[in-house]
Amino acid sequence: MMRFEVSILGCNAALPTYKSFTSSQFLNIREHYCLIDCGEGCQIAVQRYQVKAFQIKDIFISHLHGDHVLGLMGLLMSFGLNQRKKKLRLYGPKGIREWVEVQMRLMNAHLSYPLEIRECDSEQSELLLDTPSFQVFSLPLAHRLACQGFLFKEKPAHPNMRKDRILELDIPFRQIPAIKAGGGFTDAEGKFWPHEELCTPPPPPRTYAYCSDTAFHPPLAELIRGVDLLYHEATFLHELLKNAKKTGHSTAKQAGEMAKLAQVKKLLIGHFSTRYQDTKALLEEAQSEFAQTAAAEEGKTYSV
Amino acid sequence: MMRFEVSILGCNAALPTYKSFTSSQFLNIREHYCLIDCGEGCQIAVQRYQVKAFQIKDIFISHLHGDHVLGLMGLLMSFGLNQRKKKLRLYGPKGIREWVEVQMRLMNAHLSYPLEIRECDSEQSELLLDTPSFQVFSLPLAHRLACQGFLFKEKPAHPNMRKDRILELDIPFRQIPAIKAGGGFTDAEGKFWPHEELCTPPPPPRTYAYCSDTAFHPPLAELIRGVDLLYHEATFLHELLKNAKKTGHSTAKQAGEMAKLAQVKKLLIGHFSTRYQDTKALLEEAQSEFAQTAAAEEGKTYSV
Repeated sequence: MMRFEVSILGCNAALPTYKSFTSSQFLNIREHYCLIDCGEGCQIAVQRYQVKAFQIKDIFISHLHGDHVLGLMGLLMSFGLNQRKKKLRLYGPKGIREWVEVQMRLMNAHLSYPLEIRECDSEQSELLLDTPSFQVFSLPLAHRLACQGFLFKEKPAHPNMRKDRILELDIPFRQIPAIKAGGGFTDAEGKFWPHEELCTPPPPPRTYAYCSDTAFHPPLAELIRGVDLLYHEATFLHELLKNAKKTGHSTAKQAGEMAKLAQVKKLLIGHFSTRYQDTKALLEEAQSEFAQTAAAEEGKTYSV
Repeated sequence: MMRFEVSILGCNAALPTYKSFTSSQFLNIREHYCLIDCGEGCQIAVQRYQVKAFQIKDIFISHLHGDHVLGLMGLLMSFGLNQRKKKLRLYGPKGIREWVEVQMRLMNAHLSYPLEIRECDSEQSELLLDTPSFQVFSLPLAHRLACQGFLFKEKPAHPNMRKDRILELDIPFRQIPAIKAGGGFTDAEGKFWPHEELCTPPPPPRTYAYCSDTAFHPPLAELIRGVDLLYHEATFLHELLKNAKKTGHSTAKQAGEMAKLAQVKKLLIGHFSTRYQDTKALLEEAQSEFAQTAAAEEGKTYSV
């Protein structure tokens, strides 16, 4: 099966430390490489974790808080210093264009590659990217300023032709596309073989939702219903619900509740406050609501 | 003697790596703490090297290239998240105010402390900071865009009163300030003791010059003549003089030449291109021009 996996480059909230970085994820969706958020030091993290950063085609920025965007200019500049030529697309909230253009002007910098910037609506879900094999939608979130998550959705694949049938029935190569598209086949003896006996069904399309930063936000559930993997922020333990509400964040319990509400398959929590030395208590709290939960670990790769 | 020392938080040119950061220095001048330049990840470096970052009073930014300024917003924000209250002064080239203010506005951020921004002229040396014990001047440099170095200059200290004379001659406490200021003393037997026999001379004022980034720039020599420690960039080996000229940088040989020309006491080279695995060849080249040269090492502290 084609790869669809996410590597955590950083999952700290607010502040990087000398051991761990702020929000950033490297997504490999069928060998198309994307970056989600870009906290300070991201260009260092991509070296440390040896991801194929130079081949990133699309960068998705959730919002303009420092722990999600302060590594962006460094990464864009380092692509330039390494003489990148391929186009790069950048998606972010309103203001991302000014963010990039003002700094470029003040640095008197010129990139070696085309940079295409798209500002998202942040108030409603939009189709941002449509490739032959997957789509990306924005997910409006409830934070202190314009913020959206992202939904990565594979398109249904074609069924797989059964190799044993090709040999057994001597099916001509030119007829295979029509069979994969749903057709049957009549063999030399006049017997008709329906599609279902010639093909195996494709694997179901996989989906990944990135939701950070956000308060507990029930309308989100509809947009991410049944996703294979949900990354949801869990900045605080529920005993700090007051802090979470005040700052537009979620507790680990609320992340679990969202996973349950949206009937997702697996939950990955992250964006941990640096007040927590480890993620044990946060994980247990989320698992009390939703058993299929893991706590994001920097440098680790998760299959969708 | 009061401390006057500089800690290297990063001395890479252009790009940070997972082992080393771009330009940033923490300066302790008589327990007054300053930061010089602030490359990406500086807030991580100050944790790694455990300097008293929270007590920094003044930040000096040489120019608006990413490897000197991309850590600034993160550091300013982290001071805010840690509820700093004390005023912070920021000095930089024209444009530094817009750099900070646009990002603050787009992040919808409000600092918990007063931030005072001063834009330097960059074309002529100016007095930027005048405290009772030291002064800071800007040093116009020759780079691709507005750029200045900084000269940190202790003020002459008062002579030290000799304790043996105080006891021997029974000098009243109230007369000591006048003696330290140059006066003498007549003892109980009517004998006059001149100033020189009552005091030891103060240590000579110390000076530190930070010069990065710059091409070899002869007019600089007059402004830094005889400094105790010169930090001068040495991005390339001299075999890449063409690259140095094209990009407004210096070779290690040129850094040595500047130290010789300006008759400084010690030279510290830095801002090394990441193409060099180690600094051995750069150091040897600079030393061939100026023997009292060291190559900056990240995490190391140098006395002025």
